[in-house]
Amino acid sequence: MNDAPDTASPRAQATRQRILEAAIAEFTAKGLDGARVDEIAARAGANKRMLYAYIGGKEELWLAALEAVYGAMRAEESRIDVEHLSPEEGIAELVRFKLRYTAAHPEVVALLTSENLHRARYLRRSTHVPALYSPVVSMLATLLKRGAAEGRFRDGVDPVQLYISLTALSHFYLANGHTLSVIFGRDLLTEQAIAAREAHAVEVILGYLRRPR
Amino acid sequence: MNDAPDTASPRAQATRQRILEAAIAEFTAKGLDGARVDEIAARAGANKRMLYAYIGGKEELWLAALEAVYGAMRAEESRIDVEHLSPEEGIAELVRFKLRYTAAHPEVVALLTSENLHRARYLRRSTHVPALYSPVVSMLATLLKRGAAEGRFRDGVDPVQLYISLTALSHFYLANGHTLSVIFGRDLLTEQAIAAREAHAVEVILGYLRRPR
Repeated sequence: MNDAPDTASPRAQATRQRILEAAIAEFTAKGLDGARVDEIAARAGANKRMLYAYIGGKEELWLAALEAVYGAMRAEESRIDVEHLSPEEGIAELVRFKLRYTAAHPEVVALLTSENLHRARYLRRSTHVPALYSPVVSMLATLLKRGAAEGRFRDGVDPVQLYISLTALSHFYLANGHTLSVIFGRDLLTEQAIAAREAHAVEVILGYLRRPR
Repeated sequence: MNDAPDTASPRAQATRQRILEAAIAEFTAKGLDGARVDEIAARAGANKRMLYAYIGGKEELWLAALEAVYGAMRAEESRIDVEHLSPEEGIAELVRFKLRYTAAHPEVVALLTSENLHRARYLRRSTHVPALYSPVVSMLATLLKRGAAEGRFRDGVDPVQLYISLTALSHFYLANGHTLSVIFGRDLLTEQAIAAREAHAVEVILGYLRRPR
């Protein structure tokens, strides 16, 4: 097509990135159903025709936003240098990372919540995202094996269950922080409360993994 | 007011209950923003004037639905007879209850998700819901104390953090079950997968609580 953008040029890459960031911001604020393509275009300083040319319609913008959010989180997570850490410290780092990253990136809770309301029908089209998760499962499997071989961790832990649990301890806390704060009569989203949660989450996961007497 | 319903009569109670159930169903399907009062009236076989007379407008319907959902969950949870159980078994029962109840009641995840997107602005008006949670915190505090006194549990566990964690292990899993299933390439919402999750969640919480060597 003659009017297709040259997506390889630095300028085109920058435009695509600007559209993607605008989509993430709009979807974070309003979810998939509430978001408007016009608003994404306005946030990106672009027009709808450009959005279509670079990424596509609302569904393609959503999937691209979702893939970008998962991709950025996994890219950061995979920088944790577990090779040089003890199994305990490697796992503790992962637990802390999950809490800190999710707290600093409200788009994670917002987009995953909305995608689950849609029963993951868009994520199913992504070949990209599931592949992002094999390395973290392998990494956890390696840490669990090392910990068990050293007699420090229990045997037979499923790395997928463990990853879901260490994510749950942070993600649920942050995603439901407003209702939990009302219910328990304490502001659970202050920096101090999040630091207390971080220490608790690390202790829950390591306490579980330590070899039972 | 002459046309106010006699809310004490059995018939009025039944009508109110029907409206409440219709509201919960509509809010579960569409969230607070997507739900329509006309649709709640249709589901209840009532008209909008009756909804106003018995409960109020959309915001009052939402708060009443939210209070009913929290109330029903806590009523069931408080029936767990922890007094006659060991500290381990009492806590395990709570963990299992959370998973099974949340899996069987999709309105819990749906309404709490929507209320958190609104930063708990409606729940803040409820004096009723926070009061529902003091008994479970006391019950957990008692179990933790008994377990620590018997030398079985670690000391110094915050019962609020523990309650949030045992809820997180189930709620996050179920609320995000669709995306997690895609990511890890296994259907995590089958009965078998939920049973495996239940066993894992019990082990995580008890493993954490058991006195470290």
